[in-house]
Amino acid sequence: MSGQGTAAQAGRAVLIGLDWGTSSLRAYRIDGDGRILERRASGEGILATGEGGFAGALARIAGDWLGDGLPVIASGMIGSRQGWREVPYLPCPAGALELGSALFPVPLPDGVELMFTPGLVRVDADGVPDVMRGEETQVVGAVAEAGPGPAEGAAGRILLLPGTHSKWVRTENGRVVWFATFMTGELFAVLARHSILGRLMEGDGLDEAGFAQGLAHGGGVGTEPGGLLRRLFSARTLALLDRLPGTAVRGYLSGLLIGCEIAEARACLGGSLPEVTVIGGAELAGRYRRALEAAGALTREVGEAATARGHTLIARRAGLIA
Amino acid sequence: MSGQGTAAQAGRAVLIGLDWGTSSLRAYRIDGDGRILERRASGEGILATGEGGFAGALARIAGDWLGDGLPVIASGMIGSRQGWREVPYLPCPAGALELGSALFPVPLPDGVELMFTPGLVRVDADGVPDVMRGEETQVVGAVAEAGPGPAEGAAGRILLLPGTHSKWVRTENGRVVWFATFMTGELFAVLARHSILGRLMEGDGLDEAGFAQGLAHGGGVGTEPGGLLRRLFSARTLALLDRLPGTAVRGYLSGLLIGCEIAEARACLGGSLPEVTVIGGAELAGRYRRALEAAGALTREVGEAATARGHTLIARRAGLIA
Repeated sequence: MSGQGTAAQAGRAVLIGLDWGTSSLRAYRIDGDGRILERRASGEGILATGEGGFAGALARIAGDWLGDGLPVIASGMIGSRQGWREVPYLPCPAGALELGSALFPVPLPDGVELMFTPGLVRVDADGVPDVMRGEETQVVGAVAEAGPGPAEGAAGRILLLPGTHSKWVRTENGRVVWFATFMTGELFAVLARHSILGRLMEGDGLDEAGFAQGLAHGGGVGTEPGGLLRRLFSARTLALLDRLPGTAVRGYLSGLLIGCEIAEARACLGGSLPEVTVIGGAELAGRYRRALEAAGALTREVGEAATARGHTLIARRAGLIA
Repeated sequence: MSGQGTAAQAGRAVLIGLDWGTSSLRAYRIDGDGRILERRASGEGILATGEGGFAGALARIAGDWLGDGLPVIASGMIGSRQGWREVPYLPCPAGALELGSALFPVPLPDGVELMFTPGLVRVDADGVPDVMRGEETQVVGAVAEAGPGPAEGAAGRILLLPGTHSKWVRTENGRVVWFATFMTGELFAVLARHSILGRLMEGDGLDEAGFAQGLAHGGGVGTEPGGLLRRLFSARTLALLDRLPGTAVRGYLSGLLIGCEIAEARACLGGSLPEVTVIGGAELAGRYRRALEAAGALTREVGEAATARGHTLIARRAGLIA
């Protein structure tokens, strides 16, 4: 249940985990406690595999590991239409048990069987679907990594995976019961590169004061109604009226978008954000943590270890490991 | 008050109006009733003036008119920092009287005086400014063009100028008392050209069924909370799950953004949109009218005549014409 193996399993590899996304491929040798014993990474994401396609990329990153006869589990976009084999989405609620029961086997020529985790789909009350693929494995692992906390109450736990397409997730007892995707990162990138707002930006730095100013406005802490569409133009007018230096416009836009995202997510989650587990170790996760804390939420951070822990929990529920 | 001149003025030019924007320049010879007697247009917007700069562009479009000694009034981005001379913004509330009292004269070599209309600035309750330049003249004219209507009640009149940066305006007794800018058009353009959503689009058409589907979702007619950031990804997931054909993604995104804009504007305007005067005659104005009517609002449309009528009303209040 908690992902703890026996003492004998600790330190000995029992599983190979692959985190195979759009632009990167990570491979882990994992022990029975879900700890990473060895890690490798390559740029051969599903859109950038070299000679021999997916099989070639797999051989290059973990060919020497495959001879050990360990089970291999793969999560991420490798199971999408653009990946190795399209694995159907599983409906919510779902956790390690449901994911483990729906692993999709792809046999390799040398007798190894690659087990793909399915993604998740959630159809909202308006009949509009949302999907994730790869994040479900991180979430299952992150809940175990984070351990029981004050937030794991009646409302469950709230997790955030910031990025190009940020995912907000609510779990109950380790199962994903709700999630939503916010296109914040991609919106920032296209606006910075291609819009009138980008033309006002001086330099590549994310000015802290600008970020805080954008965050306050985007989060709607004031009394003015309206959402992102109304607020976006402020990045231009503030600069135009000399209330925001050109060097702070980039940080302001980042803060504005993240503030809007948090305000929308909070509304989706019933109006309160007591604690948020942020998955990811990069600078971006830190920016989200500062934003969440400014909005009154407790945060904790879980890194790459969540993925391997997720692989372990799902593999155990699938009966691949003891 | 109503912009009606005497019978003697009708049909005789009393004013030259210039609508000088970023990408286009329009010139009107206008009679005392605010009617356009003759119109000319060129591509010499402030970012594209040819030989001789602004003076050259003016001479080319209306050099032969200037000899008549008529007053000349110019509205639009020509009065911005990137224009001929920066004219300060006027605070709201403001109408023809305030605008007419703040015209900014720029003398030309041949004795003609060019009168620039100021733009408007509004600082919201959060201390964040919004600006317009050129639209104030259209709005003043549009209120007069539309005449008294059922919407000109205690809450005043609501006007919409759709475009790259849509402006929503509330007037009372012909004066602008509130406005807000929505970056809808620019957001659509950058997402269609540069985002993952654009890569799903097949063809250049705006599919009507897709537009209606996006409008319903963007307008938040359903029961799911969240705003644009959460809703944007639906353009991808619906396509991915075969609930939206590739040929309808472009129309869906347009509807989604316009639906979000209307929902946000409605919230800004206290929750109701009884009647909206849409300024503009293009296909885009028609799309907004359909969207507004789907949201239960009455609409009326006012075209290019609004600008010349605005020039006339402002010039009269300035004492430039009788």
